[in-house]
Amino acid sequence: MADPRFFVRSSPIALKKLAQLTGAQLAEGANPEQLIEDVAALDTATPSQLSFLDNPKYIESFSHSRAGACFVRAKYSSRAPKAMALLITETPYAAYALAAQYFYPNQPAPGISPHAHIAPSATIGKNCHIAPGVVIGEGCVIGDDCVIGANSTLSHAMLGSRVIIHRGVHIGQDGFGFAPGARGILKVPQLGRVIIGDDVEIGSGSCIDRGAGPDTIIGDGCKIDNLVQIGHNVVLGKMVVIAAGCGIAGSTKIGDGCMLGGQVGIAGHLTIGKGVKLAAKSGVMTDIPDGATFGGAPAVPIKDWHRQTAALIKLTGKKE
Amino acid sequence: MADPRFFVRSSPIALKKLAQLTGAQLAEGANPEQLIEDVAALDTATPSQLSFLDNPKYIESFSHSRAGACFVRAKYSSRAPKAMALLITETPYAAYALAAQYFYPNQPAPGISPHAHIAPSATIGKNCHIAPGVVIGEGCVIGDDCVIGANSTLSHAMLGSRVIIHRGVHIGQDGFGFAPGARGILKVPQLGRVIIGDDVEIGSGSCIDRGAGPDTIIGDGCKIDNLVQIGHNVVLGKMVVIAAGCGIAGSTKIGDGCMLGGQVGIAGHLTIGKGVKLAAKSGVMTDIPDGATFGGAPAVPIKDWHRQTAALIKLTGKKE
Amino acid sequence: MADPRFFVRSSPIALKKLAQLTGAQLAEGANPEQLIEDVAALDTATPSQLSFLDNPKYIESFSHSRAGACFVRAKYSSRAPKAMALLITETPYAAYALAAQYFYPNQPAPGISPHAHIAPSATIGKNCHIAPGVVIGEGCVIGDDCVIGANSTLSHAMLGSRVIIHRGVHIGQDGFGFAPGARGILKVPQLGRVIIGDDVEIGSGSCIDRGAGPDTIIGDGCKIDNLVQIGHNVVLGKMVVIAAGCGIAGSTKIGDGCMLGGQVGIAGHLTIGKGVKLAAKSGVMTDIPDGATFGGAPAVPIKDWHRQTAALIKLTGKKE
Repeated sequence: MADPRFFVRSSPIALKKLAQLTGAQLAEGANPEQLIEDVAALDTATPSQLSFLDNPKYIESFSHSRAGACFVRAKYSSRAPKAMALLITETPYAAYALAAQYFYPNQPAPGISPHAHIAPSATIGKNCHIAPGVVIGEGCVIGDDCVIGANSTLSHAMLGSRVIIHRGVHIGQDGFGFAPGARGILKVPQLGRVIIGDDVEIGSGSCIDRGAGPDTIIGDGCKIDNLVQIGHNVVLGKMVVIAAGCGIAGSTKIGDGCMLGGQVGIAGHLTIGKGVKLAAKSGVMTDIPDGATFGGAPAVPIKDWHRQTAALIKLTGKKE
Repeated sequence: MADPRFFVRSSPIALKKLAQLTGAQLAEGANPEQLIEDVAALDTATPSQLSFLDNPKYIESFSHSRAGACFVRAKYSSRAPKAMALLITETPYAAYALAAQYFYPNQPAPGISPHAHIAPSATIGKNCHIAPGVVIGEGCVIGDDCVIGANSTLSHAMLGSRVIIHRGVHIGQDGFGFAPGARGILKVPQLGRVIIGDDVEIGSGSCIDRGAGPDTIIGDGCKIDNLVQIGHNVVLGKMVVIAAGCGIAGSTKIGDGCMLGGQVGIAGHLTIGKGVKLAAKSGVMTDIPDGATFGGAPAVPIKDWHRQTAALIKLTGKKE
Repeated sequence: MADPRFFVRSSPIALKKLAQLTGAQLAEGANPEQLIEDVAALDTATPSQLSFLDNPKYIESFSHSRAGACFVRAKYSSRAPKAMALLITETPYAAYALAAQYFYPNQPAPGISPHAHIAPSATIGKNCHIAPGVVIGEGCVIGDDCVIGANSTLSHAMLGSRVIIHRGVHIGQDGFGFAPGARGILKVPQLGRVIIGDDVEIGSGSCIDRGAGPDTIIGDGCKIDNLVQIGHNVVLGKMVVIAAGCGIAGSTKIGDGCMLGGQVGIAGHLTIGKGVKLAAKSGVMTDIPDGATFGGAPAVPIKDWHRQTAALIKLTGKKE
């Protein structure tokens, strides 16, 4: 179980309620009134705990697990130990996430730290949690049920609801706009904003610059990991997932549902289609069509990248 | 126009004053007393607003723009719509920057937040803006007209004038100096400073370590983007421009006017000449002479990098 | 000498005490009572100062140095100037580190800033230095003699003794755990902790996510540079050294004594053996056996990487 110094667990819950909560079907033979006390991994779960089987690689652990109940796909149900109550679902990991959310509600309690610095003209929605050291500038608008982590700073920003900003995130500073001229390198005033949709999560240490004139836009449901840089005027569609260490240069547009591996870099003024996947460390220098998977630097379709890698190995192998 | 919740616009200004301010020439037929109220892009500007044509790609937008006035190079003036007043200059983007600076003065108002933590022995120049959560250590010297963004920390540092430190920047911590020995990995005291020239800008989340014995030096007019790492003893010349996500290892020297694309890494103890350009994601492992352009990892002259890329594509293409 | 505005120097010390302190042998002819006032580089040291010769590249500087005393390997002692007292050791840089630590004790004075925000249930060891703006969450345990730099945040974390956390470090936030399902991208509660051993150092701006269920573990003596990302469930062995800008994805295990160059990325769920070395900018996508040195992206044994690079150059050279 989770360390009680850090996590407060909710009270036990009946299987029938867990089924309701997660949309799973209680399999024949399970007792709907059976109380579950906690979630745990297959190999450590006890008869009062609930686990899940998602990756078939763990099917042996499943067959030998002492877990009292388990989320599992229908096709694996025959492999379950006798004593285990089954909750049948095609998305066991998502069902586990919902159950774990019940036992360990993730959201910190609403409240605004007296050690946050919030401009009088900023608007804060209902039930927000704002941690110490947060700085929110003039005119910012924060939706309902948002969490803003310690020492994050926001300016020129408008956030939807249920947004989670982790710690040390910086949103709304000037983009990197300079004009070389006779008087040296001039700063170009950055006159746009950062618009963040609903259900967005932004990881610790990440930076999102405000637009130069147009806005920088982060679509609903985007999930951005730690230490990511988003340049001015960038537009992310909905549910874009960006792993740690990525950088997206100014004015690039990224379609709905794209997934970026770690340390990807994307040049400025590009258009990345919907549902594009980029391998970790890709360096993208061209537009990419909908649905494509790219890798390498400069990034190419993933099959070509694998061929390049194989060709290089062959080339050097000959010399041994 | 810029969102008035976030931006305060200065009062209208006559064309003749804009010409004075920017060094542009008012073209024949323009009314020097015509009042301009704001800046805007070519396609959204109204007759009371000012725009600019820099990239010839936008010449059609220019020819159809309703903007009341526009900065433009002499050679394109014949393409202007009739009603548009022209401000002739060879650097229209720089002129636009100056005009936009007039309408939207970028500098936050001078003042030191009561929530900043400044050591008594630190010296702060005139007209500085120091935001909440800033920590300035013993003995630091900050020049005039500097801006230090929220939650940044400085120690062992001396800054020139008109320096802009964005948010969550960390300057002056120990460099990464360790000596392996019989008693494990020993910490080597870092006895230098960070010296920052005039007109430097340092982006959010960036880190500059102090020198190990010599100083870490950032020359006048350098512009450093977000999430950049500068190691101990690094020396940047004047007007070096570094895009987001770069890392420069200890004791490397970078000449005046160099430009680094995003996510570039440079190994330690190297000498990069003046005016060198490095493509995004370059991994530099050798000295580079003045004026060269390099790319790739390990970085090579940019033509060679393009050839490598082309050769790889050819190599794999043959196999299809 | 170090700038007295930033560094307080200890009082002079006799050569015999320096020998004791560092384990070096005082060479014949040296006066054990000779007082040393400071450390300095070979080329700037004066007769009252102490220097070191580690890299034989500097042997000429050594032969002409005015330093009053010097740490040096026995085999180079004959090259010393006459007036120089020699402290013979096989690890001159480590000896220098100890001497410099004597003259300039690095640790800031113990004390907890009134501007730190520490949860009542957190436990802080003896003689810790906790800077302004630090946020320490419920239940955290901090060992003795730790230093926590300004604006760092910790939650769900247990630290050993003599840990140095630099500034703006974020430890213990949720890892990047999401389950796609019928209701969109669900957040998977992260129920583990961050466990940090003794004598660990973590650079400014770095982020360490807490475990998803298991813990994230940083072994004794690890040294992590600035702007490094450590994902959930990562396990670092002892004395792992990680340069700036690296990212390690979730659940990867890294053996004792590994050394990672700058901007290395390691994919998730991998096992990196003991004593592995990774060249800067490596992109690791496979397990690596004990003692290997890898480079490139995708990373391969370093010899193969050098061959790949050479083959590419040859390939393009032919076309000129």
